[in-house]
Amino acid sequence: MKALRVGVMGYGTVGRGVVRMLLDHADLLEARTGCAVTLRYIADHNTESDRGVVLPETVTLLNDAHKMIESEDVDVICELIGGTGIAKTLVLKALQQGKHVVTANKALIATHGNELIAAADASGVELMFEASTAGTIPIIKSLREALAGNEIREIYGILNGTCNYILTEMREKGLPFETVLADAQQKGYAEADPTFDVDGIDAAHKLTILASIAFGMPLSFDAVSVEGIRHVSAVDIAWATEMGYRIKLLGIAKRCDGKVQLRVQPVLVEEESMLGAVEGVFNAVFVNSDFAGSTMYYGRGAGEEPTASAVVSDLIDIARNVQAGAKMPRIYPLGQPTAQLSMPTMCPVEEMRDAYYLRLSVLDRPGVLADITAILKEHRVSIDAIVQKERSPVEHVPLVIVTHEVTERQILDTVAAIEKMDSVSDKPRMIRIEDLGVA
Amino acid sequence: MKALRVGVMGYGTVGRGVVRMLLDHADLLEARTGCAVTLRYIADHNTESDRGVVLPETVTLLNDAHKMIESEDVDVICELIGGTGIAKTLVLKALQQGKHVVTANKALIATHGNELIAAADASGVELMFEASTAGTIPIIKSLREALAGNEIREIYGILNGTCNYILTEMREKGLPFETVLADAQQKGYAEADPTFDVDGIDAAHKLTILASIAFGMPLSFDAVSVEGIRHVSAVDIAWATEMGYRIKLLGIAKRCDGKVQLRVQPVLVEEESMLGAVEGVFNAVFVNSDFAGSTMYYGRGAGEEPTASAVVSDLIDIARNVQAGAKMPRIYPLGQPTAQLSMPTMCPVEEMRDAYYLRLSVLDRPGVLADITAILKEHRVSIDAIVQKERSPVEHVPLVIVTHEVTERQILDTVAAIEKMDSVSDKPRMIRIEDLGVA
Repeated sequence: MKALRVGVMGYGTVGRGVVRMLLDHADLLEARTGCAVTLRYIADHNTESDRGVVLPETVTLLNDAHKMIESEDVDVICELIGGTGIAKTLVLKALQQGKHVVTANKALIATHGNELIAAADASGVELMFEASTAGTIPIIKSLREALAGNEIREIYGILNGTCNYILTEMREKGLPFETVLADAQQKGYAEADPTFDVDGIDAAHKLTILASIAFGMPLSFDAVSVEGIRHVSAVDIAWATEMGYRIKLLGIAKRCDGKVQLRVQPVLVEEESMLGAVEGVFNAVFVNSDFAGSTMYYGRGAGEEPTASAVVSDLIDIARNVQAGAKMPRIYPLGQPTAQLSMPTMCPVEEMRDAYYLRLSVLDRPGVLADITAILKEHRVSIDAIVQKERSPVEHVPLVIVTHEVTERQILDTVAAIEKMDSVSDKPRMIRIEDLGVA
Repeated sequence: MKALRVGVMGYGTVGRGVVRMLLDHADLLEARTGCAVTLRYIADHNTESDRGVVLPETVTLLNDAHKMIESEDVDVICELIGGTGIAKTLVLKALQQGKHVVTANKALIATHGNELIAAADASGVELMFEASTAGTIPIIKSLREALAGNEIREIYGILNGTCNYILTEMREKGLPFETVLADAQQKGYAEADPTFDVDGIDAAHKLTILASIAFGMPLSFDAVSVEGIRHVSAVDIAWATEMGYRIKLLGIAKRCDGKVQLRVQPVLVEEESMLGAVEGVFNAVFVNSDFAGSTMYYGRGAGEEPTASAVVSDLIDIARNVQAGAKMPRIYPLGQPTAQLSMPTMCPVEEMRDAYYLRLSVLDRPGVLADITAILKEHRVSIDAIVQKERSPVEHVPLVIVTHEVTERQILDTVAAIEKMDSVSDKPRMIRIEDLGVA
């Protein structure tokens, strides 16, 4: 029987999950791949901590990853260190040494992936990263294989479980962002420094990867327009709920008018839509493509076992290639050879078109509404709905407007004009409304 | 460049979709597989009808499928005829001739798959059938590849779009089954003879296939307990809705206590669950597995283009095998070699445990409720909720009971005892309540 000898680099949460899965399910993996998938090495700077896993004698625990990479008796390295420092150096070295690499590292792939793919190409090895994007969900496999005969039109992804958990809790409990974030940190759903998650950077890394595969473009993290959820207020969530919407942080990749737009933003989606139903720490990716139409993929975006499952799925693909004697890479990391990737024209943010939710704080006086609608008309922004519930002769009250589809340029100009009105206090709040275009 | 030469057998709706996709996206397929995927033959008994597709000179339209199968210049046959008659003969012949086969035919695979897989094994060719189950959704690929490192615990599938459309319409419009069925037939969502769909047979074919891959068992259509949706009434749908449930026809495959249960049944699922959100002609498959946890896959279950996308995804996998010079089958049709499949102990229907919705028609008289609850107690059926809304001194009124988890044996005995009461008219209606066990 052929064998695939595995080295795990980084023995933290995900590393532990992969180690456990390889040990617990060794028989199952052999039955399903026809190849012995055997753990040989684990490398971590900490070789002392008890991870609660009994390692068999056939597994060597090292504190020097270089030794593992240089070893003759390892075929594939799982990089589960994270970050773009030492992880990059080690992955590059492994590829150059002719080892296949499987990684869960979204930041590494999104920001250094082009260089790493070139190294994998040069060595004729697989570089796989299913676990990097939407955790256990096989979205990379689905785009790269199941939907590969389609032209992909749009991707909408709930790609960050921390943000989705926070937004769900804010809605269900009516609490402000800071309170829910603190709670999420205590429960281990958010990092001590939550920047990567709540500012949308993590979701943007993942969107970068999905967009490259979907649109055949090089990895282009800098092309993503990014906005996080810090400014989403409990008030806006309550309004959205009342109007039949949910607020979700979405990663959006779209083709429109021959251009590509990539953005991460909190948006309103219909409560009754499939993405509207995705709550808590779960992730989901909704894809529109020309033949398959609307498809969606749902599951846990993080965690020891779900992430391990995705890492191991990549190992299974490689093991099946080994068993079948296939020339590798059998599938290119971005779904097609690097030479065929090309950078599309990007759509500037201000040209992107959407409907908008606007929340103003206005004085409840005669003529104010007329002035506001006049400004909207002047900027050719047409109104889908307008709601004012509270009345007060002396205080500012919220006025919510839902517009038809307009460009961001139009809405920014409109809001700037409204902001100058004496009867308007505070900065108007604007959130895009995404029509998921189920087809 | 290597090539995969394709023959399409059956030029109906799905055949037309596959032909269009291969012609429209020839460049894209070549870019993504590194292999020229070229349509060579189409075979259909009707070569005269205009399908609105302009065929290039390189494609030969035949009315004799045998000629295509025997041809030296075709590598893979797409069987899109349907049924288990001529389709079986032709697929078997193609496999014996050493051609790969891709089919969308669920009935064929569910009822003759073991024989066909043996023929494919003997010839060393691929037999693939992604399009057979849940249309465009890559559920077979996901089970066979993405989740292959997991032990699968449970599958819950909305596998029949016709039934889901009918149930959705009944709920939204408050109409009876027959009315909605007639409307669905007129719209082309239901066949003139709707038996296969509404009696659950089509869903059972699909469940058979999913269960084999998930549980490593031979295809065992006869092991599925099947109940359709003809007896689902608008009244039950209204009650379910009021209690926060949706009624869905689910294909259910579960492991419990070392046994496997396979059934197709209308069941109540929570309105807020992911499957509860799947409406109209869409399909979805929810999978619980040990490492990945809960995952779900959603998309169109039928239609020219969605089904074509699934057929072409199988062609893409084969083309990538050809390009990589892989020994085939690279992945066995049921996810592991036939010799390793084994039949589990099946759980008899009467031993299956679930909560139940019961709707009785009772006289609103003193003592009736006490008598009913006494019968429930006697059969050790504990009550989660009990609702009687209407009051009438003379007529029978509905009484709805939701039980805790019990065996089907218990509930059948209970209902038989209740039915004998003088104060109960009509046959009590019972529907299982599925706890989807999100984890």
